[in-house]
Amino acid sequence: MNKIEKVKKLIVEKPLKLDCGKTIQNFPLAYETYGKLNEKKDNAILVFHALTGDQFACGINPITKKEGWWSHALGPGKSIDTNKFFVICANVIGGCMGSYGPSHLDDKVDKPFGTNFPVITINDMVNAQYNLLEAFKIKKLFSVIGGSMGGMQVLQFVSNFPDSSHTAIPIACTASHSAQNIALNELGRQSIMADHNWMNGFYAEKQKVPDKGLAVARMAAHITYLSKKGLQEKFGRKLQERDDLKFGFDADFQIESYLRYQGSVFVDRFDANSYLYITRAMDYFDLTKQYEGNLSKAFEKSETKFFIISFTSDWLYPTSENRDIVIALNAIGKDVGFVEITSDKGHDSFLLDVPDFLNAVKNYLNMSYKKIQ
Amino acid sequence: MNKIEKVKKLIVEKPLKLDCGKTIQNFPLAYETYGKLNEKKDNAILVFHALTGDQFACGINPITKKEGWWSHALGPGKSIDTNKFFVICANVIGGCMGSYGPSHLDDKVDKPFGTNFPVITINDMVNAQYNLLEAFKIKKLFSVIGGSMGGMQVLQFVSNFPDSSHTAIPIACTASHSAQNIALNELGRQSIMADHNWMNGFYAEKQKVPDKGLAVARMAAHITYLSKKGLQEKFGRKLQERDDLKFGFDADFQIESYLRYQGSVFVDRFDANSYLYITRAMDYFDLTKQYEGNLSKAFEKSETKFFIISFTSDWLYPTSENRDIVIALNAIGKDVGFVEITSDKGHDSFLLDVPDFLNAVKNYLNMSYKKIQ
Repeated sequence: MNKIEKVKKLIVEKPLKLDCGKTIQNFPLAYETYGKLNEKKDNAILVFHALTGDQFACGINPITKKEGWWSHALGPGKSIDTNKFFVICANVIGGCMGSYGPSHLDDKVDKPFGTNFPVITINDMVNAQYNLLEAFKIKKLFSVIGGSMGGMQVLQFVSNFPDSSHTAIPIACTASHSAQNIALNELGRQSIMADHNWMNGFYAEKQKVPDKGLAVARMAAHITYLSKKGLQEKFGRKLQERDDLKFGFDADFQIESYLRYQGSVFVDRFDANSYLYITRAMDYFDLTKQYEGNLSKAFEKSETKFFIISFTSDWLYPTSENRDIVIALNAIGKDVGFVEITSDKGHDSFLLDVPDFLNAVKNYLNMSYKKIQ
Repeated sequence: MNKIEKVKKLIVEKPLKLDCGKTIQNFPLAYETYGKLNEKKDNAILVFHALTGDQFACGINPITKKEGWWSHALGPGKSIDTNKFFVICANVIGGCMGSYGPSHLDDKVDKPFGTNFPVITINDMVNAQYNLLEAFKIKKLFSVIGGSMGGMQVLQFVSNFPDSSHTAIPIACTASHSAQNIALNELGRQSIMADHNWMNGFYAEKQKVPDKGLAVARMAAHITYLSKKGLQEKFGRKLQERDDLKFGFDADFQIESYLRYQGSVFVDRFDANSYLYITRAMDYFDLTKQYEGNLSKAFEKSETKFFIISFTSDWLYPTSENRDIVIALNAIGKDVGFVEITSDKGHDSFLLDVPDFLNAVKNYLNMSYKKIQ
């Protein structure tokens, strides 16, 4: 926890009324910035992270000591070029990298909140992050961008603040979380809650860690981030450091070993309760319902230009769900571009080295930035 | 366990050498029969069950008090018409409905085997069940049929016993378990092993039940049995007996409540170690590898006629993997029919009321039976 206490934070003094009815204030929002804000303050991009992301989008994450989650797309000379743009990325509320979340200390009882933390929504996350604009005295962002849950935040942001960004790039996301995705998130939550050490969410004060349950949740999610074809090509039935099957329950196959590894490294960097809260926020996300079943209304008041990106092998947020957003924008004559990128890398494509995707983002940002000069 | 002790069993006296190297003998094989064996003994069908199935394919299962798992397809006047055919269905070895499995008593120590039970394979399962033919003095079956893991057993059966069945109907299966499917099975296993009560597999002797881990494994599997579209149409974002979201971790959505229910009823009828052993057998299944990479060779010596069935929305054993079996049979000029049934019900289609599927099976069996008269 000490390391996380040291990360950069904005203390949001202004009260924020959450969707659940509670009001929070003086809460921390951990963030990072990349590049420089120019004098005109017209080159700022707000990047939203996905379920297990954080504010360390590029460079070396000081907590994990690994490359930031969007190092392929973000940095000097990259698609989101930090030689040109000023990028802000904050840890969502509910998260565990310094922002207000369930591992945060509840001052009233001097213990971590645990499951006494309020259930938050994508709307709450976005409203909390809007305070960064004031903090940096930015009147209008150049762009808001994010994949997966980051894309949902993009949609919610434009809907809440129709005049606050010139462009918006939601990637591999949806306007309304599907039954299958709720099911998959519920699976992760049940896995955590089944852990003997979860203790109804009050494990931190008891010096316990529900790491086995969290690891299983991560394994489940990880499978959904990759495509069947991608898994087959990368792993197939290759054996893990052995010539033949061992007739036991150790990892015989590379895919088993890989999944176990993914589970084990995840528990070192992520909090189980944060996993519960953030997946809950995703499941609650239904922008269409917020606008009485008419998604177009969410964007009616905005002149923000959209560029929507999906991936052929993404079965978690398939092209059809991304296209629904395009259709809603088209229906009210908004400026919207759309591309479905061919990739076997599944939902994870937006995090990986997928040149067609990276070029599409780069070109759209550069072209759009020229237009506002 | 008392109820399971009372089920119908064949005690296989003959030694059976397992793929792992061990030899077993005098082991029980729990089975049921439906319909009557005719005088010519030419109307027998061997039905193979899937991962969580058992010998109670139709009628009321005396253990669960629910309809048998294949009641839509099997019974008087059904696709597999028990007025006409004599059907045998056995619990696979490794299972928990009376056949030799990890919950079976290890006489040497007078305790359940637990994880001292040998790792078994689809090949072992099929070899064990072959003893039923001798027991009923059946020289040649009319058909072998099964879906999912049952389909794998069909393929292995014909490969091992090329002259023992006139026809074979593998449904929604594969000749070689894919990386994604190994990953999904490993997820289920890790979920069970993460349960505090699993105790390295020796929970029974300690009067513990790893029910939470087993329930999560079942939830994970259940999601994969249904299609994204099917889930969306059946559940969408419907709420569970409430007017609005409750901002908590109870089941707000019907899909959550449904999954929790599926998990909870499963643990009453299934043994966690059996889940480990049977998923392991599925993962080890690679008929193509058994024949040096040439699947056609598995069927070269057989005159068995094949009818292969897949479902459009089955993403676990997609049409492409079923078609690979057709291609292998075509390559050596074997008699093979193939149909891809249109259904939104996912992999579970073979267990459900899918008329096109049920008619296809009925017609194929009736037509083929006429031909052998």
